[in-house]
Amino acid sequence: MCIRDRTSSNGGGAATGEHYLPLATTEGALLASVNRGLGVIRTAGGADARVTKNGMTRAPVFRVKGVAEAAETVEWVNDNVDALAEAAESTTSHGELLDVEPYVVGDSVYLRFAYDTKDAMGMNMATIATGEACEIVEAETPASLVALSGNLCSDKKPAAINAVEGRGRSVTADVLIPGELVEERLHTTADAIAEANTRKNLTGSAKAGSLGFNAHAANVVAAAFLATGQDEAQVVEAANTITTMDARQREDGASDLYASVSLASLEVGTVGGGTKLPTQSEALEILGLRGGGEPAGSNADALAEIIAVGALAGELSLLAALASRHLASAHEDLGR
Amino acid sequence: MCIRDRTSSNGGGAATGEHYLPLATTEGALLASVNRGLGVIRTAGGADARVTKNGMTRAPVFRVKGVAEAAETVEWVNDNVDALAEAAESTTSHGELLDVEPYVVGDSVYLRFAYDTKDAMGMNMATIATGEACEIVEAETPASLVALSGNLCSDKKPAAINAVEGRGRSVTADVLIPGELVEERLHTTADAIAEANTRKNLTGSAKAGSLGFNAHAANVVAAAFLATGQDEAQVVEAANTITTMDARQREDGASDLYASVSLASLEVGTVGGGTKLPTQSEALEILGLRGGGEPAGSNADALAEIIAVGALAGELSLLAALASRHLASAHEDLGR
Amino acid sequence: MCIRDRTSSNGGGAATGEHYLPLATTEGALLASVNRGLGVIRTAGGADARVTKNGMTRAPVFRVKGVAEAAETVEWVNDNVDALAEAAESTTSHGELLDVEPYVVGDSVYLRFAYDTKDAMGMNMATIATGEACEIVEAETPASLVALSGNLCSDKKPAAINAVEGRGRSVTADVLIPGELVEERLHTTADAIAEANTRKNLTGSAKAGSLGFNAHAANVVAAAFLATGQDEAQVVEAANTITTMDARQREDGASDLYASVSLASLEVGTVGGGTKLPTQSEALEILGLRGGGEPAGSNADALAEIIAVGALAGELSLLAALASRHLASAHEDLGR
Amino acid sequence: MCIRDRTSSNGGGAATGEHYLPLATTEGALLASVNRGLGVIRTAGGADARVTKNGMTRAPVFRVKGVAEAAETVEWVNDNVDALAEAAESTTSHGELLDVEPYVVGDSVYLRFAYDTKDAMGMNMATIATGEACEIVEAETPASLVALSGNLCSDKKPAAINAVEGRGRSVTADVLIPGELVEERLHTTADAIAEANTRKNLTGSAKAGSLGFNAHAANVVAAAFLATGQDEAQVVEAANTITTMDARQREDGASDLYASVSLASLEVGTVGGGTKLPTQSEALEILGLRGGGEPAGSNADALAEIIAVGALAGELSLLAALASRHLASAHEDLGR
Repeated sequence: MCIRDRTSSNGGGAATGEHYLPLATTEGALLASVNRGLGVIRTAGGADARVTKNGMTRAPVFRVKGVAEAAETVEWVNDNVDALAEAAESTTSHGELLDVEPYVVGDSVYLRFAYDTKDAMGMNMATIATGEACEIVEAETPASLVALSGNLCSDKKPAAINAVEGRGRSVTADVLIPGELVEERLHTTADAIAEANTRKNLTGSAKAGSLGFNAHAANVVAAAFLATGQDEAQVVEAANTITTMDARQREDGASDLYASVSLASLEVGTVGGGTKLPTQSEALEILGLRGGGEPAGSNADALAEIIAVGALAGELSLLAALASRHLASAHEDLGR
Repeated sequence: MCIRDRTSSNGGGAATGEHYLPLATTEGALLASVNRGLGVIRTAGGADARVTKNGMTRAPVFRVKGVAEAAETVEWVNDNVDALAEAAESTTSHGELLDVEPYVVGDSVYLRFAYDTKDAMGMNMATIATGEACEIVEAETPASLVALSGNLCSDKKPAAINAVEGRGRSVTADVLIPGELVEERLHTTADAIAEANTRKNLTGSAKAGSLGFNAHAANVVAAAFLATGQDEAQVVEAANTITTMDARQREDGASDLYASVSLASLEVGTVGGGTKLPTQSEALEILGLRGGGEPAGSNADALAEIIAVGALAGELSLLAALASRHLASAHEDLGR
Repeated sequence: MCIRDRTSSNGGGAATGEHYLPLATTEGALLASVNRGLGVIRTAGGADARVTKNGMTRAPVFRVKGVAEAAETVEWVNDNVDALAEAAESTTSHGELLDVEPYVVGDSVYLRFAYDTKDAMGMNMATIATGEACEIVEAETPASLVALSGNLCSDKKPAAINAVEGRGRSVTADVLIPGELVEERLHTTADAIAEANTRKNLTGSAKAGSLGFNAHAANVVAAAFLATGQDEAQVVEAANTITTMDARQREDGASDLYASVSLASLEVGTVGGGTKLPTQSEALEILGLRGGGEPAGSNADALAEIIAVGALAGELSLLAALASRHLASAHEDLGR
Repeated sequence: MCIRDRTSSNGGGAATGEHYLPLATTEGALLASVNRGLGVIRTAGGADARVTKNGMTRAPVFRVKGVAEAAETVEWVNDNVDALAEAAESTTSHGELLDVEPYVVGDSVYLRFAYDTKDAMGMNMATIATGEACEIVEAETPASLVALSGNLCSDKKPAAINAVEGRGRSVTADVLIPGELVEERLHTTADAIAEANTRKNLTGSAKAGSLGFNAHAANVVAAAFLATGQDEAQVVEAANTITTMDARQREDGASDLYASVSLASLEVGTVGGGTKLPTQSEALEILGLRGGGEPAGSNADALAEIIAVGALAGELSLLAALASRHLASAHEDLGR
């Protein structure tokens, strides 16, 4: 099943204008939920979305004899990022090495390489480039490569390093919804939604020891990933999302609803991998985002922003449903 | 794309005998990797797998006036689990309430309801049953329901509560592989794989602040979920997986490889949701696991165990590849 | 250095009445901060505090051959908690075994024993009792003890299992402060404090991947621990604290401030360990909490509640200071 | 109570030569444990220790209107680190701004400022300097300061951002202990200790959702902090420690024990705060580390390294005790 619904995103960035959000899912309630949220966002004048950080990472782990060699290796790496960049970039026509961050645990040294991989999701590009850079590290330092991925990348695992520092695109979307619209269309109030969000998404997630402070961002991301040919297992990192909802008091005493989602680690591309499959390629084509963007990276940025707006719509709709207490009955009515 | 490869799982439980593992993915390297791992496991005599805990959870959040009312509510709940069970179970012919665990944060009270939902993944069943129980809580205590899900469930978020206490099935699979087989088929040694696993999956994940101590369990789970009609967004919790690999020294001085995966929160079902779609239903049919099991719950247990063995195969193969340093070149050769 | 300031705690529980909060610290700004907060709480009519959960834990780790033996061990433990209780309780005149929770990771089985240790902090009691119970486990199951502590206890480490499930006392304190009082004494508004708390303690902590959603609860706990003879290293778990602050709108349109702290894992005792030292014993004497309480456990409960109120005072004062922007200047003025 | 025992640390860095480790604690078993570990380390030829990263952080939180302003603020900050450094450093004669890292969550922008504060622990220095820099941010961007600390610092909270990126000193200490010495003095084997460490400190901590993969580093740090005038509440961050222990096979077939501790966020100073108190000042004097070092920062580095070696000794001794099963009886014998 696949719907295409229109969202609009004002205010600049690649996600301006009107876009379709392609979703592939078997859950009827999800489509209805996102549709309702997108409708409210559209009526409110559209959402803003921005990629604020970008970097695909790969972090090999090296063995050293002990802490003295570890310190020596770290020092060499910090002094020779240019040499590592030259080696890494020799393997790719598009990728750029942005940063190398060293971490020491006993006789293990981890180097987290971050790349701008433009319109590619870029994990393979990052892996190959890092492999080349590792040869320099091994030649110039006492460190010996143990594994090309040492889990500080961290790919497809629920890791704080991604939630904090990002992986792929760090993207935020938000919208300001007039109080009247909240009442008419969502059948509740800005204050009630804000309270539900704080007790559930913030305090509840805090008590759960969570890295994801949202209601169901993964639902929207999973459906959008399937529809646009992304790596389905990277839904894991996409769930590192924080949703905020606040009642903003107006001069006239009424309250509008400010809602945002911040996805720390959304890994998407518009070239390579599953994006080349017929249906997925067509979905990207309809979005105007098939293949490489102009400038390079802008298509993947735009895709990240569109998915973020979709996640925002899903959060809005579900929080409103919870606040007005009809989650269980929605599932009963819409099936799955 | 979809392959079906044979795995075997000896030693009891629903996963004994020989099974096909249906996977749907666009990543060529993944299929090759799992295939290689399954081949080695089969030659080693098969894997063991066991579900050691089972419970689908839903955790509403209530508002109270303050800590005095919170304490009063907790006390009432602890004293009246039977009444809550009666209410919850009145909404379902299959589900059983296993436990209700209260958590207090200021003027919020969270109640984590855990259900045995048999062969259903059970999230909707748990939601509806919990909705009914909440009415009793509201009637008998000062607590007022704010949201039917308060994120201590925790659904589709990377939360420690799931990694620690489990959600859906907690399932472990393991295998003991003779050292000779490791060398012949994986082109490395038990010691080298154990070292790579410790530095990457244990120490590396520790340094990354991760809840997932594995290489790529989510890859296998995502592909198996697509093929068998599970909820794709629940790959998030499936990534709460710990992989261990140790060299076990034999009497003759050689070392065998002990490898295990423990998935804390694997949410699967063989009835309801996407399992009813034609292709997915067929995949379950081939596994002999379509519909409800005998006894109830045994089909979902078996599916969890089969997926765990698939994840074990993927871990084995990738760790071996890393240990023998051909991750990058494998991606280059097999494409994606 | 040591001050004793008066706090009051109304509304029931052992912490009712008026108490002194003994603190030992070298940081001048901290004492001033807690004093200010306590003054405001007192004027507001006092704080409420309640212990909502209690259990000192110890979690040995056992080696098994593999998952089949792990499942067998878990099943035996679940069926024989009474036998384990008998063994454990044979070593102690006061302690009671409350619960044993099994966890499986590959060929390791962890059993988390939780005890009511009454007025003792109880870690040694729990260790000795668990040692006795382990002998039964070894005798009756295939499991072999590797270490009497397997880190699922978890003692003196920043672990989610404590933040979620608690260790020692789980205690919450709260207060409702009239808006007028906030303005007069804290020189800011309920709305401003609530905003600062949400952006800093909730959203900021979320983004930091934290298990502690508070400003500086550890400061107050560390000083109170030193003064009353607690284990200073257990400040680590005490930091698993969530602070909430909300503006509650009144009928007349003005806003009062609701503030709470929830310490998930506060490990305190009034007998044993450092509580027997002269100065520390005197501090407990002044609180009326020296030695065992009547009923057993009530003195340690009361101490936990008093410390929680102290932490609440510290949070209030610091959040107010941040909201009114004089944190840096306070440090400049008051030195440290 | 306060003991001073000798440790030695070979191999370079400020921690070379022989040092006393001053500890203040009421726990008899702890002193005996550290003493035993230090004795073994000394006999093995001493430990190595290195500070591999250094930076005291403070992270204010700003309010913006929405994501568009957030992106604008981030861009300005990334382009104007020099201006921020000039402002920040105008408030201090010693401190240097090393880095400013922006993080966006909806309409909140967090800027994590990291400083080299030389021989001071530096939190107040960092706070004051950051306050000055915030005025520039407010003047030049749409961002408005909400709180001078936004919890991404993160001070005295168990936060992944510290465990991953460090705060204060990131310091590692290690030692290689001949197998014979392990057997003679610790009454167990390298293999047994390595197994206990893996099952407890690595796998057990993983299952506990922990940021601390050690046995009791906080015990040693708390005692050393009290003795040398550090901020006792910062024991919280010190617990972000990973302990590794491996059996390294020798050519002759026997196994030596490699042991390390890596403290990600150890916040220490030799000037300011409690270091000026008489007893604490004397303790630093005996270490040869009182006041500012030459070059600046070297005394605090050395203190961090000495404490790390103390933590290593404590880990060694406790792991050996667990491996040889006498933890409970040690507590019984040595009291507390």
